[in-house]
Amino acid sequence: MGIDRYINRIGEWLNGSGENAGIVISSRIRLARNIKGIPFSIFASERDCNEVAKMACFAFSKSSYLANADIIDLRDINDLGRQFLMERHLISIEAAKGQNGLVAIGDKEMISVMVNEEDHLRLQIMGSGLGLLSLWRVISQIDDTLSRNLDYATSLNWGYLTACPTNVGTGMRASVYIHLPALTITNQINKVLKAVSQLGLAIRGIHGEGTESLGNLFQISNQITLGQTEDEIADNIERVTRQIISHEQTAQKNLLEKASKSIEDRIFRAYGILKYSRLISSKETLNLLSQVRLGVNMGYLMIPLSTLNELLIIIQPAHVQKIAGRILGPKARDEKRAEIIRQRLSQ
Amino acid sequence: MGIDRYINRIGEWLNGSGENAGIVISSRIRLARNIKGIPFSIFASERDCNEVAKMACFAFSKSSYLANADIIDLRDINDLGRQFLMERHLISIEAAKGQNGLVAIGDKEMISVMVNEEDHLRLQIMGSGLGLLSLWRVISQIDDTLSRNLDYATSLNWGYLTACPTNVGTGMRASVYIHLPALTITNQINKVLKAVSQLGLAIRGIHGEGTESLGNLFQISNQITLGQTEDEIADNIERVTRQIISHEQTAQKNLLEKASKSIEDRIFRAYGILKYSRLISSKETLNLLSQVRLGVNMGYLMIPLSTLNELLIIIQPAHVQKIAGRILGPKARDEKRAEIIRQRLSQ
Repeated sequence: MGIDRYINRIGEWLNGSGENAGIVISSRIRLARNIKGIPFSIFASERDCNEVAKMACFAFSKSSYLANADIIDLRDINDLGRQFLMERHLISIEAAKGQNGLVAIGDKEMISVMVNEEDHLRLQIMGSGLGLLSLWRVISQIDDTLSRNLDYATSLNWGYLTACPTNVGTGMRASVYIHLPALTITNQINKVLKAVSQLGLAIRGIHGEGTESLGNLFQISNQITLGQTEDEIADNIERVTRQIISHEQTAQKNLLEKASKSIEDRIFRAYGILKYSRLISSKETLNLLSQVRLGVNMGYLMIPLSTLNELLIIIQPAHVQKIAGRILGPKARDEKRAEIIRQRLSQ
Repeated sequence: MGIDRYINRIGEWLNGSGENAGIVISSRIRLARNIKGIPFSIFASERDCNEVAKMACFAFSKSSYLANADIIDLRDINDLGRQFLMERHLISIEAAKGQNGLVAIGDKEMISVMVNEEDHLRLQIMGSGLGLLSLWRVISQIDDTLSRNLDYATSLNWGYLTACPTNVGTGMRASVYIHLPALTITNQINKVLKAVSQLGLAIRGIHGEGTESLGNLFQISNQITLGQTEDEIADNIERVTRQIISHEQTAQKNLLEKASKSIEDRIFRAYGILKYSRLISSKETLNLLSQVRLGVNMGYLMIPLSTLNELLIIIQPAHVQKIAGRILGPKARDEKRAEIIRQRLSQ
């Protein structure tokens, strides 16, 4: 299968570089675009969809970022394959459920475009650490190039038109994927979550809206796509994120001062279990990886951030099965997951 | 202090040799003896006690096993020192609480004699693995030698007279110190405990009567000292112990067949925590060491039994403080304990 080439790779957005990469795993921008004169995907005929796909692929071929993209028709891969792409944040949960459409994946998984999802096009860019403004500059260029060959649906009053009114305007959703263990341990996280909401931002679990927070990982994103420029949206999230980072760092310092031995114990036990367990669920893994990441930030452990970031992705069910090379039941997955973790942590 | 020389040693009875040493940590025989014409310790004057001590020391000097014994006056050492000797099974809990008396410790801690405890003399021999009959042969020789210089209180009807009627007759208490994790995991342990009681034997926690069972460790000993020869007592316990060992081995085999992955996971997690924790209580340590010992028996881990046996002793509070070289509060002990364990397991 075409997607198997991704099994032993890691997206560049997980390489642990960039601003505050110990706390901010990654930044991501997604733009929703539709083509004038063609019904939104939900109302589109198969012919409409094919037309969109053809136009999109032609436009990609004219973009230096996407000309060599890997174009995958989601109808050509099975449930496991779609779940695998979703776990890598390359397609949405909706698309993983079996929708038609295709995805174009650029070099090192930094850029990807979903075609015929909720909107005709959803352009995405991901990068390591905190860096929405610089990501915006890149994706904006790509968007400009595509717009030369695609007649986007826009309105003078509303900006970019989108299938769901919550995206209209810039069509932009910007987010950071952030790890807040010390704020959680010191019971300050709810205060932070509330404050973030009051600033007009959403803070959610790891796979976006409606998903649970696991392993002290959160996604912070803009709620509003209209009435602000893309730069303002990106800048606002970056500023709020820097404040949260500063709170997290203060909480980590306080922990070190007031409970350093207990925290050290907690961190090393988590590391010991990850290094030795023979059966482990993804939920437990995320919680233990959270302690270990805190340990790396605090200087107790020396593990490359890229290893910790990669583990966040490859311990998910579809990845575990793809690495094993076969369909596995829950217990067999727990066994294979433990093996993958041991192997990665002993590298 | 004289007893500090024991800090970095390990008694020969912990060396992991002998029959079924994976399951039976050690065997022990204790003989209660009193000297004719001198009141039992509880009624004895200080002069009586001094007299007993003088006679005992003279008798020791005539025994090849005890001539070079280390003779420690319990009044010369502090609470921590007495607790340290108790943790090594060289003096009783009662003696550790601050009673007068002395203890003679033979080479490699195999033989020891308490003087002026409940009885004038309590001779003890300990050995690794299951081997009461052979221990009996050695201690019987020592007892014979001592009796040439000490006029033991005996009666034609009752045999050796002892301060407590439960010891009268042979004055012998024989015991094995046994590890039964699989019988515990498979919920068969209560059946075994009940059966052992019905055979006239006592089964108890690690420091004898009235102490709790921790880490799946039990002490099996005779209840009756009268009406059976010493050989019969030793042989009876050995036979019952062999039956229990066989049940434990069957339970281990069943675990391997029915739940090998879960058991393997449990064993390796315990090992991982012991290798990495920074704060650990003695109770948790005993429970984790139990899993690790099971892992060694099952072939999952390669750790010398002597290391596991030594850890059972040195993780106790007085040992932790003796190794640290100072008095430590509970949390500081948990920290030092974790350090000792990591150090021993990485050797």
